[in-house]
Amino acid sequence: MLACGCNAIDVHTHFVPERFPPYLGLRKSVPWPSMTPAQQPCHAHVMISGAVYRTVSQRCWDGEMRLADMQRQGISRQVVSPMPELLAYWLEAEDTGALAAHVNESIASLVHDKPESFIGLGMIALQSTKHAIAGLEHAVKTLGLAGVQIGSNVNGVPIGDPRFRPFFEAATALGAAVFVHPLRPAGTDRLVGPRSLEQVVAFPGEIGLAAASMITGGNLSCCPGLRIAFSHGGGSLPVLLSRLQHAWLQVPAVRDLLERSPLELASTMWFDDLVYDSATIRHLIHVYGISQVMIGSDYPFTIMDHEPRATVEALSLDESEVAALISGNADRWLGVTAKAQKRMPAAGEASSAAGLGYQ
Amino acid sequence: MLACGCNAIDVHTHFVPERFPPYLGLRKSVPWPSMTPAQQPCHAHVMISGAVYRTVSQRCWDGEMRLADMQRQGISRQVVSPMPELLAYWLEAEDTGALAAHVNESIASLVHDKPESFIGLGMIALQSTKHAIAGLEHAVKTLGLAGVQIGSNVNGVPIGDPRFRPFFEAATALGAAVFVHPLRPAGTDRLVGPRSLEQVVAFPGEIGLAAASMITGGNLSCCPGLRIAFSHGGGSLPVLLSRLQHAWLQVPAVRDLLERSPLELASTMWFDDLVYDSATIRHLIHVYGISQVMIGSDYPFTIMDHEPRATVEALSLDESEVAALISGNADRWLGVTAKAQKRMPAAGEASSAAGLGYQ
Repeated sequence: MLACGCNAIDVHTHFVPERFPPYLGLRKSVPWPSMTPAQQPCHAHVMISGAVYRTVSQRCWDGEMRLADMQRQGISRQVVSPMPELLAYWLEAEDTGALAAHVNESIASLVHDKPESFIGLGMIALQSTKHAIAGLEHAVKTLGLAGVQIGSNVNGVPIGDPRFRPFFEAATALGAAVFVHPLRPAGTDRLVGPRSLEQVVAFPGEIGLAAASMITGGNLSCCPGLRIAFSHGGGSLPVLLSRLQHAWLQVPAVRDLLERSPLELASTMWFDDLVYDSATIRHLIHVYGISQVMIGSDYPFTIMDHEPRATVEALSLDESEVAALISGNADRWLGVTAKAQKRMPAAGEASSAAGLGYQ
Repeated sequence: MLACGCNAIDVHTHFVPERFPPYLGLRKSVPWPSMTPAQQPCHAHVMISGAVYRTVSQRCWDGEMRLADMQRQGISRQVVSPMPELLAYWLEAEDTGALAAHVNESIASLVHDKPESFIGLGMIALQSTKHAIAGLEHAVKTLGLAGVQIGSNVNGVPIGDPRFRPFFEAATALGAAVFVHPLRPAGTDRLVGPRSLEQVVAFPGEIGLAAASMITGGNLSCCPGLRIAFSHGGGSLPVLLSRLQHAWLQVPAVRDLLERSPLELASTMWFDDLVYDSATIRHLIHVYGISQVMIGSDYPFTIMDHEPRATVEALSLDESEVAALISGNADRWLGVTAKAQKRMPAAGEASSAAGLGYQ
């Protein structure tokens, strides 16, 4: 077991509520989720449209089980975000908003019970700017969440599209952290093999394209101070960046797009280290900078990195670099203030989520 | 200028014929290419469907201009393949075959004039197995080409689809080298910015998915001895591989797919080094192995690496590693025999393309 003294934080962990309320809207055939017991002990089926979407562990909602796992992993804090399929941008915005209200309150409750251990990211109806901004304000101001998780695209439109700029401006103004996760990825028509390859093989390209779209579409340049992080190490972004950087230097049409270089812009974003390989993590650090990479595990899903802190310890970095990856970078992304840092986890000390000092 | 004594080879250079014959088929509105003069000296427009597809340099077909550039770059040999848009899988197979006959003969002519400097890859109508195999045999046996370039997908179907297995089996049996290049990439709906981003930002993901499909779909396992290479360093493949490798170890459905590990299978393929960044090339070498990476420049197009050999020299590798990257790996991929190596370029010595010893 690794010592927990360093306040290590895992920024990529997921949450499913123990139950969902029945759908109370007026529409028909809405793919609203529900939970049913699974045969496997301590598991439940997430049902969507009458079929099992995924069988998930009780760890998805049970704070005590999460804490036990975290202690074993040497992780002091988890950033908790919804299972991505729950983002449900394909519903009407009012329905997504109702689902978001339940999911966000469930996450806030977990955080409220253990504010020294859990940091919450909510969800919003990003298919509607009005709903998204109202939902973000409620999540941050009323529920005390640190920000929101968003999908890499909204019904096929990448997040770098200018239509999403008002949302990113609002997140910047609120000081809300934004975590981007692949959702309904591009390129599934290029896969050969079982359905499970969608998450294994198509996710990295999807998140890379989303991150690139924030650069080439101008949303990043227009929102200085935006604190945005990408899962899966930004996926293909490192290799897109080296080519985009070359084109920016060589091709006038690309140069004219961006005042600052693609590499410089990329280094204003944060990335988790969920790439399962030391050499690849070192490459992420080379590309994005030691100040922008954070621990991410995909807890508690099958494909998770079971030893996310050991993954960082294995990189043979110096002490200050390890500290940056283990907690410092995530604290900057989340906007945890120096004051809040000082107040942090004397073991067992309870404090309200609102008191944690998210800027 | 770099010395040319090491027989350095650039495996990723493109060709456009100086002219095209008129379309002689029976169909209407066929997007058959033609050339018209451009205002810019030593340039021509490639016209397709009445519009300028691309304005290209005379270097696309002029052997003397290519040789002058190669001498400046320290490159002794170029592998010459068609400009990818010429692959034209969207025509009827007979029409693609007719276009291929002209393009392949033009490339063979360049090779025949300077067999010590140029190695030719042809094109085939991969949308029809019958046409593809017949075209491949003609290109290799009659025209003396080393193999063919193929697109990463054929009208949206990735090359890892089992329908293409007979083609790969034929290439293996013939000892033909196969070079895979992105074509009509996946993910263009995820780009935000000008049209030129298609090649800059979408190509790496497209070639990565194509390479992954050869692994997950079984075509690679079914064709031991196939000599296949991917452009653009395999694009996103390195990051797909680390995730696929993890899934292969953790997820039964993925493990059951493959007898050999994804990483082991990937290291049986070759890759050019066209990623524009030393650290990224070093990462390719780490992932694929020092024996599988080759010089590739995208000559003579705008986005090319202008100093492809200097790119390798800058990696600070030892002498034997540099030799592998500069020529040894490409010779193995192309099937240049030890006997042919001995016979190679006494300066100015002419030999027929067929005599160069492709296995």
